[in-house]
Amino acid sequence: MFESIHFESGGRRTTNASRPDVLDRLRAIVGEENVVVDPERVEPYGADAVKEKFPPEAVIFPATTAEMAAILKLANEVVFPVTARGGGVGYTGGAVPVEGGIVIGTDRMKQIIEINVDDLYITCQPGLTTYEVQQAAAEVGLMFAPDPASYKDSYIGGNIAENAGGMRTPKYGVTKHHVLGLEVVTAQGDIIRTGGRTVKNVVGFDLTGLMCGSEGMLGIITEATLKLLPMPEATSTVRANFTSMEAACKVLTKFTPHGILPMAMEVIDKFCVAAVEENFAFGLSKEAEAILLVAVDGSREEVERQARIIEQIIAENGGFDVIRARSKEEEDKLWDVRRAISPSLMKYGTLKINEDVVVPRSKVPELVARIEQIGKRHNTFVANFGHAGDGNIHVNFVVDRDDPEQIARARECVAETFQLSVELGGTISGEHGIGYVKSQYMHYAVDGPTLEIMQAIKRAFDPKGILNPGKMFV
Amino acid sequence: MFESIHFESGGRRTTNASRPDVLDRLRAIVGEENVVVDPERVEPYGADAVKEKFPPEAVIFPATTAEMAAILKLANEVVFPVTARGGGVGYTGGAVPVEGGIVIGTDRMKQIIEINVDDLYITCQPGLTTYEVQQAAAEVGLMFAPDPASYKDSYIGGNIAENAGGMRTPKYGVTKHHVLGLEVVTAQGDIIRTGGRTVKNVVGFDLTGLMCGSEGMLGIITEATLKLLPMPEATSTVRANFTSMEAACKVLTKFTPHGILPMAMEVIDKFCVAAVEENFAFGLSKEAEAILLVAVDGSREEVERQARIIEQIIAENGGFDVIRARSKEEEDKLWDVRRAISPSLMKYGTLKINEDVVVPRSKVPELVARIEQIGKRHNTFVANFGHAGDGNIHVNFVVDRDDPEQIARARECVAETFQLSVELGGTISGEHGIGYVKSQYMHYAVDGPTLEIMQAIKRAFDPKGILNPGKMFV
Repeated sequence: MFESIHFESGGRRTTNASRPDVLDRLRAIVGEENVVVDPERVEPYGADAVKEKFPPEAVIFPATTAEMAAILKLANEVVFPVTARGGGVGYTGGAVPVEGGIVIGTDRMKQIIEINVDDLYITCQPGLTTYEVQQAAAEVGLMFAPDPASYKDSYIGGNIAENAGGMRTPKYGVTKHHVLGLEVVTAQGDIIRTGGRTVKNVVGFDLTGLMCGSEGMLGIITEATLKLLPMPEATSTVRANFTSMEAACKVLTKFTPHGILPMAMEVIDKFCVAAVEENFAFGLSKEAEAILLVAVDGSREEVERQARIIEQIIAENGGFDVIRARSKEEEDKLWDVRRAISPSLMKYGTLKINEDVVVPRSKVPELVARIEQIGKRHNTFVANFGHAGDGNIHVNFVVDRDDPEQIARARECVAETFQLSVELGGTISGEHGIGYVKSQYMHYAVDGPTLEIMQAIKRAFDPKGILNPGKMFV
Repeated sequence: MFESIHFESGGRRTTNASRPDVLDRLRAIVGEENVVVDPERVEPYGADAVKEKFPPEAVIFPATTAEMAAILKLANEVVFPVTARGGGVGYTGGAVPVEGGIVIGTDRMKQIIEINVDDLYITCQPGLTTYEVQQAAAEVGLMFAPDPASYKDSYIGGNIAENAGGMRTPKYGVTKHHVLGLEVVTAQGDIIRTGGRTVKNVVGFDLTGLMCGSEGMLGIITEATLKLLPMPEATSTVRANFTSMEAACKVLTKFTPHGILPMAMEVIDKFCVAAVEENFAFGLSKEAEAILLVAVDGSREEVERQARIIEQIIAENGGFDVIRARSKEEEDKLWDVRRAISPSLMKYGTLKINEDVVVPRSKVPELVARIEQIGKRHNTFVANFGHAGDGNIHVNFVVDRDDPEQIARARECVAETFQLSVELGGTISGEHGIGYVKSQYMHYAVDGPTLEIMQAIKRAFDPKGILNPGKMFV
């Protein structure tokens, strides 16, 4: 994510996509107004949250699956790179055309095709935000469970392509656990249908699972059928301070014998606590070396019962200043500390390098302690917070964007953090994916034969390598 | 499943696997005693629940991943078919060597490598039964949720390779939702590692998902890391009769507004009810045209609360003779009716052709009604029961094993049932998979371009086609 931190506005690459005859054929497919080539207007489509710029040669906005298929048939015939883009808020450059070519924006593909309350699914196009999907479900009393932090900006197509996580994973799993079926346009421009409308479906290889997390490299999602759940009646949160990260994480294992699987279990380390307190003055205890937030959902009675047990377990296991929310408003307030972290950390530098390693959750204290040592060794500020319940920790190295030496040191920290995560039985990304930003680290986590199989799958789907080139394998 | 109902004992095929030098090399890998070639001893490894016989040339029993890799390297070099076998209780011939070659039995691979209570996973070899996995988890207070009916006989490796379902799907999903990572030996004899120990993992393509349900055609599973959950404190079941299948199924949608997602929702049609009553005299009402069983799990308080609501909703929506279990024993008794179906149906013929189509659950009444018509049209006895909560219905055509004309009629019924399931928005298999038994029907459910992609994946994994040939694509 910081290979070349400074914007490279002149770095635009040119491929067959820029040929006038090709642009004319693209205009014939989607209409003049949906092919954008003006450099100023394409520029925003050349970056994501990483903020490096790789401007595409053109941005194309299809509205239908047929248009998407025609675009890909053309790209496969003429041969130029095609990068699909949803909300464009990824952290690893998945939606960024690093090798030029066209970006396909799914912004016009926002139709909800069906919400089926009896059969608990929604079928929609990929250009809805995940929030819009959640809202559509909520309006009929149902829940779409995946809940990545970016849900108001990220598109459901992108969330599927990246297999997005979020906070509710301990109870509900990740995006792939909620995708029943997909319509996908392949690199050859064929329209394929994976899975279906039912949870049970064992007819051929599970292409639905394979498409989830394939980062736009195997096909472009044009329609998704997603599993919905009954909307839980209530939620509740317990927040507490601990004198160590170890104590905070240890308590998570104590809920299991009570049959309790919280929806969310979030942890905040001492550097985040200090940063938040310095900037927002929540009045957190000076002895708080870690903050734990535990949320449950379910029926009103069960939520009340579980929250009470959780409160008690926390208090018995070293938690102090334990607060249990007794209303939606109180609950929101408890989460303010979590929401304040990112803006608070930005006071320590102009560039926050946010990694999202994951380890078995019992290893989180060791992970965090050793990352602290890595930061010290390389004289780099680091603060950790994240999803303790599933072991997915956001590691934030904060540096000065204009100091190449600081950036070089942070780069060392990142590489060591990735090695450490693998050493602890985890891996280099829990939510953000690989894109071009982490591709050089893939071999830390994935061995040679496994990488070869992945590349063989890529060739089987996309023999000419037109779909999102320059990602994952480098 | 009834292409050639009569045993074909003479149908043994011979490939390079029978060459004395090859058998010697196999003996060198796993030891003399673990290479079985005696016709009588290999015969049981030539069939599964379908009962057709395709005796292998040899059965090999490796104990380690290294041995498995050596066997596959040899098979890929010399070129002969390799079919992996777990418990051998599948319904579509997935473990049966229809094109000869060797069967690899995983019976010696029964090690539990790790049970991690804090991190909620188990790592084990593929030769444990699913029941043994459940038991190992239960001993430390945890639950392995997938629960196929065959769990006492089927091996976990086979359940993963077939992506087994079962009764708990409405709440817990299917096997693939509980697999965190796999070690797999490829057709080339390479050892690959997919996924890991964490729910969140977005490092490369999701090979774990792809392996689930791949029916032994892409690799052989040698180790699995499975997600465990806190063991629910209690379960409860409500059973009721209805005067129509429609009424029984309609009630399932009424739980949603109460935020209730039952663990299991099973339905039994009037023909099953009649068969069960005739054979076991449970004293079921003569007006019962359908029986509904609804089970919930969770904390004692929540189970009690939900069971009460379910009881009330059922009573308000046409259910009669509503019984709610108040103890584990009472609960077991309620399920006796369900367990009595299969033996009861065998009174109507010597061959029960058990299909497992799946439709969106609101379509179950139409499915069952139209299957009744199909049976009448072809003068074939048919009875339906199954997983109404996820739309997965077991359709049983019962005929005389020795009457080719009856079998031909049943074959027509099956083809029409598959067409109907697809027409209703479902597919041809929810749990049993394709194997060789349903491969001729794949095109009902999967279109040409999607089939081509699946075949391209197969070629990418297994260029010489040695792994479980003759399945899925024909």
